[in-house]
Amino acid sequence: RCHQRSVAMLDIPFPPFLAFLGSLGVLCVALVGTWCQHWRGGFSLDGGIRTFNWHPVLMVTGLVVLYGAAALVYRIPATWSGPKLPWKLLHGGLALGAFVLTVLGLAAVFRFHNSNGIPNMYSLHSWMGLATVLLFSCQWAAGFGAFLLPWAPTWLRQLYKPIHVFFGSTILLLSVASCVSGINEKLFFSLKNGTTQYKLLPAEAVFANTLGMLILLFGVLVVGALARPSWKRPDPESLDSRQVL
Amino acid sequence: RCHQRSVAMLDIPFPPFLAFLGSLGVLCVALVGTWCQHWRGGFSLDGGIRTFNWHPVLMVTGLVVLYGAAALVYRIPATWSGPKLPWKLLHGGLALGAFVLTVLGLAAVFRFHNSNGIPNMYSLHSWMGLATVLLFSCQWAAGFGAFLLPWAPTWLRQLYKPIHVFFGSTILLLSVASCVSGINEKLFFSLKNGTTQYKLLPAEAVFANTLGMLILLFGVLVVGALARPSWKRPDPESLDSRQVL
Repeated sequence: RCHQRSVAMLDIPFPPFLAFLGSLGVLCVALVGTWCQHWRGGFSLDGGIRTFNWHPVLMVTGLVVLYGAAALVYRIPATWSGPKLPWKLLHGGLALGAFVLTVLGLAAVFRFHNSNGIPNMYSLHSWMGLATVLLFSCQWAAGFGAFLLPWAPTWLRQLYKPIHVFFGSTILLLSVASCVSGINEKLFFSLKNGTTQYKLLPAEAVFANTLGMLILLFGVLVVGALARPSWKRPDPESLDSRQVL
Repeated sequence: RCHQRSVAMLDIPFPPFLAFLGSLGVLCVALVGTWCQHWRGGFSLDGGIRTFNWHPVLMVTGLVVLYGAAALVYRIPATWSGPKLPWKLLHGGLALGAFVLTVLGLAAVFRFHNSNGIPNMYSLHSWMGLATVLLFSCQWAAGFGAFLLPWAPTWLRQLYKPIHVFFGSTILLLSVASCVSGINEKLFFSLKNGTTQYKLLPAEAVFANTLGMLILLFGVLVVGALARPSWKRPDPESLDSRQVL
């Protein structure tokens, strides 16, 4: 009884947590947009440095925040009963939106590099980021094939589901690690020669470092929420459900 | 039945997985040592750049590999029965070893900065890394107080255990994110002016990028192993165990 009371103290309900997480996600998008607009010269499509500025904004919005929203769909208790198809379409649709923004974010950095004779894919940030996007594309295609197309056999869905769940969290962790290494790298590029150096910690550095810490917090909270047993859909094959039947 | 057969196909036993993970951890330590020895001039305690070289080696060894070993102790089936104290001492002792190496790793970079007039704690890497180490120190102290000191009441242990487990994975993820951002940053510092630039991807860059990807793989596999339900100690309060009793 004491065990249950002490565990109950930790039993935050999902909806207020989701509201907090949603606000944190919106804040991350607002901060990365403000950073690029206010300190990095804003946005354009001309292939210059203002084309690059789409890269952090689209990656944080797509590969972190929208991806996190897609991952959390099945933690909403309303998804646990009734027809599954609308929720599958929402999950797959949010993930597709995240993927489209991610590809546009990649296009922005490749276009900037190619227009300015900068090599692509040399830094650890780029290796990690591309690995994340490749895993995400496999994850989306395999999820679509296994869970949305009607002809996948049940045994295949059951075999693939834990793999899909594992890679769902893994890809978010990799994308968060890619974001923070990218912000760190960008600040070393930008804050030198004619601006206050990064090591003197100007306002822009404090602002973008804070953004990086908030992205980390967002990623950790999403992965923690996904792993939390009491927020998962009760397994229809579990003993409890069978006893009710 | 089909469900159980397909799930069984994914049921890798823990021991060979642990052997693979151990080899991967040893490989990461060997690679970071080789990087600093072969390309970065080796090690010393004189406050120069060769003092800095202890930083990546101690962080990867302590905060990633030894930390990962400590985290996985309770996934060894032998820990699930018999007296708990020896395993608690092993878990706490490995974590303490990881913490000592981590503090020495911090001391190396602070000494290098202070000897050379370089400011401390300005980059996102340093913010993230220090947050990781602070969380780790709280985690160790709280774990010691709650689980090793004999007078903590049972309700407190039960309340704190899921928090300790959550932060156990979170700290490893933060330390892996700190490592990759640090490797990325170090390569931008080192590979310019008189060496082949990072963007031209010299052998050192390929080597250290590969190290970063292997550290990511190690972190993801440890956190995945910790989250895997079938590798957790069966809960003595669960229905199954009570039925057996």
